[in-house]
Amino acid sequence: MNKINIPLDIPLAKRSLYERRINALTKNTGRLFIFAGDQRVEHLNDDFFGPEIPLDDADPEHLFRIASSSRIGAFATQLGLIAKYGSSYSKVPYLVKLNSKSNLVKDEDPYSAAWYDVRQVAQFAKNSKLNILGVGYTVYVGSTFETAMVHEAAQIVYQAHQEGLPVLLWMYPRGKAIQNKADAHLIAGAVNVGVALGADFIKVNKPDDLSPHSYLEIIKAGGNCTGILFAGGAASNLDDLLNTIYTQVHRFGATGAALGRNIHQHSLKEAIALANAVAAIIYDGQAPEAARRLLLKN
Amino acid sequence: MNKINIPLDIPLAKRSLYERRINALTKNTGRLFIFAGDQRVEHLNDDFFGPEIPLDDADPEHLFRIASSSRIGAFATQLGLIAKYGSSYSKVPYLVKLNSKSNLVKDEDPYSAAWYDVRQVAQFAKNSKLNILGVGYTVYVGSTFETAMVHEAAQIVYQAHQEGLPVLLWMYPRGKAIQNKADAHLIAGAVNVGVALGADFIKVNKPDDLSPHSYLEIIKAGGNCTGILFAGGAASNLDDLLNTIYTQVHRFGATGAALGRNIHQHSLKEAIALANAVAAIIYDGQAPEAARRLLLKN
Amino acid sequence: MNKINIPLDIPLAKRSLYERRINALTKNTGRLFIFAGDQRVEHLNDDFFGPEIPLDDADPEHLFRIASSSRIGAFATQLGLIAKYGSSYSKVPYLVKLNSKSNLVKDEDPYSAAWYDVRQVAQFAKNSKLNILGVGYTVYVGSTFETAMVHEAAQIVYQAHQEGLPVLLWMYPRGKAIQNKADAHLIAGAVNVGVALGADFIKVNKPDDLSPHSYLEIIKAGGNCTGILFAGGAASNLDDLLNTIYTQVHRFGATGAALGRNIHQHSLKEAIALANAVAAIIYDGQAPEAARRLLLKN
Amino acid sequence: MNKINIPLDIPLAKRSLYERRINALTKNTGRLFIFAGDQRVEHLNDDFFGPEIPLDDADPEHLFRIASSSRIGAFATQLGLIAKYGSSYSKVPYLVKLNSKSNLVKDEDPYSAAWYDVRQVAQFAKNSKLNILGVGYTVYVGSTFETAMVHEAAQIVYQAHQEGLPVLLWMYPRGKAIQNKADAHLIAGAVNVGVALGADFIKVNKPDDLSPHSYLEIIKAGGNCTGILFAGGAASNLDDLLNTIYTQVHRFGATGAALGRNIHQHSLKEAIALANAVAAIIYDGQAPEAARRLLLKN
Amino acid sequence: MNKINIPLDIPLAKRSLYERRINALTKNTGRLFIFAGDQRVEHLNDDFFGPEIPLDDADPEHLFRIASSSRIGAFATQLGLIAKYGSSYSKVPYLVKLNSKSNLVKDEDPYSAAWYDVRQVAQFAKNSKLNILGVGYTVYVGSTFETAMVHEAAQIVYQAHQEGLPVLLWMYPRGKAIQNKADAHLIAGAVNVGVALGADFIKVNKPDDLSPHSYLEIIKAGGNCTGILFAGGAASNLDDLLNTIYTQVHRFGATGAALGRNIHQHSLKEAIALANAVAAIIYDGQAPEAARRLLLKN
Repeated sequence: MNKINIPLDIPLAKRSLYERRINALTKNTGRLFIFAGDQRVEHLNDDFFGPEIPLDDADPEHLFRIASSSRIGAFATQLGLIAKYGSSYSKVPYLVKLNSKSNLVKDEDPYSAAWYDVRQVAQFAKNSKLNILGVGYTVYVGSTFETAMVHEAAQIVYQAHQEGLPVLLWMYPRGKAIQNKADAHLIAGAVNVGVALGADFIKVNKPDDLSPHSYLEIIKAGGNCTGILFAGGAASNLDDLLNTIYTQVHRFGATGAALGRNIHQHSLKEAIALANAVAAIIYDGQAPEAARRLLLKN
Repeated sequence: MNKINIPLDIPLAKRSLYERRINALTKNTGRLFIFAGDQRVEHLNDDFFGPEIPLDDADPEHLFRIASSSRIGAFATQLGLIAKYGSSYSKVPYLVKLNSKSNLVKDEDPYSAAWYDVRQVAQFAKNSKLNILGVGYTVYVGSTFETAMVHEAAQIVYQAHQEGLPVLLWMYPRGKAIQNKADAHLIAGAVNVGVALGADFIKVNKPDDLSPHSYLEIIKAGGNCTGILFAGGAASNLDDLLNTIYTQVHRFGATGAALGRNIHQHSLKEAIALANAVAAIIYDGQAPEAARRLLLKN
Repeated sequence: MNKINIPLDIPLAKRSLYERRINALTKNTGRLFIFAGDQRVEHLNDDFFGPEIPLDDADPEHLFRIASSSRIGAFATQLGLIAKYGSSYSKVPYLVKLNSKSNLVKDEDPYSAAWYDVRQVAQFAKNSKLNILGVGYTVYVGSTFETAMVHEAAQIVYQAHQEGLPVLLWMYPRGKAIQNKADAHLIAGAVNVGVALGADFIKVNKPDDLSPHSYLEIIKAGGNCTGILFAGGAASNLDDLLNTIYTQVHRFGATGAALGRNIHQHSLKEAIALANAVAAIIYDGQAPEAARRLLLKN
Repeated sequence: MNKINIPLDIPLAKRSLYERRINALTKNTGRLFIFAGDQRVEHLNDDFFGPEIPLDDADPEHLFRIASSSRIGAFATQLGLIAKYGSSYSKVPYLVKLNSKSNLVKDEDPYSAAWYDVRQVAQFAKNSKLNILGVGYTVYVGSTFETAMVHEAAQIVYQAHQEGLPVLLWMYPRGKAIQNKADAHLIAGAVNVGVALGADFIKVNKPDDLSPHSYLEIIKAGGNCTGILFAGGAASNLDDLLNTIYTQVHRFGATGAALGRNIHQHSLKEAIALANAVAAIIYDGQAPEAARRLLLKN
Repeated sequence: MNKINIPLDIPLAKRSLYERRINALTKNTGRLFIFAGDQRVEHLNDDFFGPEIPLDDADPEHLFRIASSSRIGAFATQLGLIAKYGSSYSKVPYLVKLNSKSNLVKDEDPYSAAWYDVRQVAQFAKNSKLNILGVGYTVYVGSTFETAMVHEAAQIVYQAHQEGLPVLLWMYPRGKAIQNKADAHLIAGAVNVGVALGADFIKVNKPDDLSPHSYLEIIKAGGNCTGILFAGGAASNLDDLLNTIYTQVHRFGATGAALGRNIHQHSLKEAIALANAVAAIIYDGQAPEAARRLLLKN
């Protein structure tokens, strides 16, 4: 994504609002760092309580404490949490994740409907005076419920754009028809669907083949008007994490990253420092080593 | 739950109404005792008529008679019953349980839709002039119908908050994917979902492992803005019941309890005395022995 | 059901209308006799044409001829029939049966949606100037479609009450989960569901165990604000029929009966006489022998 | 059907319009001849192109050419076709067939939803100024989708009557539960359902047993206010066809016939002559031999 | 399709708009060339990235670059793409393809719902000021979801015509009931369904039997008021492609062609030249050899 492109389904009266929100998300760089905090539903308590996880993470407020002290583009989480904690964390930039499901049912093709319609989010943004910068929605491409989900995604993009709200789509190949959900060609196909849906940003998982050729296919599929974010995935080695993000963004042309566990499964102080190191890479273009040093200073 | 926290999805004009209702439910203590009377649907007549159950309980009015003479936070039951008996029991604090299903179908994943939308409950509250303090809804986390239910729960919370109505969610892991519905880690996960949905109070069943570590995980997951209530479950020994409630609330930090069978499967006089003993523990912080003595005096 | 109890979901402006309709149905006695004429859908032509059935019954107008000359509380049938024959039978008290299904599909759990919404019935009542005294709906408790049906029933009660219309629910345990649909404990459970739905009257089938204990459980479950009607069932011996109705109503405290085949499978003259004999038992409290004599006089 | 009976679900303001339409359909005789032209969907191209079918029939306009030159009560076909050809055939009396499905899926119980709602048909009638005399809908009685279809049929009748539009229901027993769809007793049951739905006319297939007793049961079930039409079925011998129609209508009391293939699978000239011969039998009461002679003259 | 026929479901006020759009699509010839660009969803990235495909095609903008420099009737693609790229390609004639699905799920009967309703497309056309000439929708005839799709198609045609928008239906036999989706008789049947739905244009695949008799049946089924377009299908030899299009249109009477892969799987310059060669055949009636020479000159 090279330029701010205002889609034509945004009404004239909402174009500058949309542009301001894009600029806030990207800190005027065209790049984006999302702090993903929707996993209390997606992964239930697996990511938040356990022998290797600091007790800080057991409390839902931990995510808000991190978000309020880090240089993130937006904190993506459910509206119910934002409503409950928003009055204490009113400066955080939020992205409302519209759908979420638990990981309990494993042998059926996945489906997850939006919990709210966009009109309700817009009403909430207005009434709460919170800094809501966008909405998000996951599409399971290849699920037997794909039709329902692409329909809902299309409606969300259309209606969010009517409200001047940018949209981030999680485009995930899932279901019995999917043999390898990390196949680069398939991920590029999922990007195609997200682009056709009019997403402003698309979050995908890393391909299993980390070659430049794989990244080329995926990022090319995003075209010039849609930003590609890569997920952090299961907690990884710190050096690997910073190097990977740098390479994805500054070598292959990705728009940014969306990280959850890699950040919040630390004590508050460490989590904030780590989030700021990632921000330095994505927004300031710092090299991984510089970001690493920044982190150690904290 | 330590403080009254007014969620930001409650419109300005409804904030003091919401606060008054929370204060009425909690009797200004931050704690809550629900008298659960929705089982005439959930358990059909099994809990209400039988050799060991006093004949008083066969009549639906028994529940109202108890509710009207006890110091409960609210009597949770179906709107149809409230509409029929409300004119004779107009001082009872009610919580409208929005969904209920019978226990007959056992080999399919459970689903239960709301019988009314929140707007109808608000209209009913206004027209009937009854003291409706909130609404309730059960979510079966892990059911193949989880998606439909979390969607409906999210809408109920959003719309109830628009009306200044607090929401109690029954968060129950159920369905073929659930191996142990009393697993503390799983219950904490169900709490996570309820918190993300924006519930004001969450009712869960007791974990099978009654260790402090289990309670810690579950109650931590509730965070600072959402109250956790434990169900009474199948009728238990009186001393155990009072001790358990005391421990859950005053040692582990639970917000309260929701009891049904343990109360109503007694003659009217005993049921009222028992409800008041529980109220003394929850609201007044009396020790179980003191509550027990109170009970014997009746 | 001992008294006229005006449910609180009936708006103030409709309370006297509701009361008038209840009084018309019960002829100011608190008791009710329904002439059930919805079986042309439920049983197709099995009940209406055959070697043992008088040819009168082959014509849909037979039901209207009976209804217009008998002292019934209401004739329950489909709106389409009422619309077609109503101009010739404008004095009949009608109860619009909202859902009906044929008996052809036998190996799936039953479901039957309302054909009309209550608003349409109210509009029809107003435009047609017919004497519509209530609406009816069947719930199959224990069917895998129970959730859809209790939702629809709750909405019908709520909306009918908004229009000042009493509601009769047919509460029938059905589906693969049901081992004995005539079990008294199960029927009492079905009554519980109907009471929680806010029904004014509930029609159930007779239990297989006709003991006072069975009737006690079923009728107690109805409580003080909801009337229990028993179905006549397959055509039975005349003496048995009259004795059973007398016993159910005047010994066990049932509110009345709903009869179909037992009435209409006779020539017009006999059918009218029989309906009037039943009315004499239910409304006037006549003994079966007296009603029998009344019948022979015709 | 002996008299024009204006159903009471027709608003006062639409009663004369309804009556005019009934009179137009029946040419003031109380009898009805429908030219059924919905099979281009139902039978795809099987009835319209093949070695034994004149090439005229391959073009959809063939049906309009026949309809515009014959003395039919109405030409029943889909709204899309009427919209396309209506400006060239503006004098034809139309009946909009609301639902249609192809014959490709054979091993599932059938279901076919209405393509339009009645309000759209009424809007189309008004805007197009075409002579729309009614609407039609097929119900598959005994299908596992029966519930959805009877609900939709009831709504169509109710709403069509609100617009002063007569309704013809195709009542067809279909699905795995049906052992013999041509059983007279079952067809009479399907008629019962159509009558309860408030249909003005009901189209059924001929029973396999063509005895007077079978026709008696079926036609009696229609009662005095609903007309029974028999389908022509697979193309049959001309003499048989004319004799059968005469007997059904003038001996057994059927209201008329609905013919498709028997008419359109001829060259235009023959088709028109044949339609007019059928009209002479139905509307003028001519004997089959006289109609036959009329046909030969053309 | 021989003449501009304005369907009667187009309101008077929109007739000239509809006519202008038809004239723009057909360049006043009654013939139509669609550049089909919806496959980034339908075929994911298979058609766009691979060893035999120029890298140009990996970028979604490639399709817009071709469309903006070729003499096409319309570029058919998803609204999201049009919204994103429309401001840079504001002169392109667009046809909004309303439904699309990926090719991942292979063992279930296909279903694909419209992503937007027609009202939204009309609103988008107005707000964006783009040159939207029509809408498109795929129907899978013979799928177990056929009923849902023909209902949706009927609604789309009706509502598009209300807005003065022409409709192109992709009529594709698909699903387990289909033995040979390229059977000419079956394709003609699918055309029948599209004509009954009121489509202005119908896109079908080529029959496997390319005889004049096959084309006769298919094109006759379209009648005089509905245009038949043939798909290009998998990339074919250039001479074959041009010859086939010429024969279909100028020998058999087809209305035109809809091509995707055959065009876009070339470098930009070649793709534009090829599109213009096809336009010369379809719109100008040039012979394939002349079109071929035109192509070589580029």
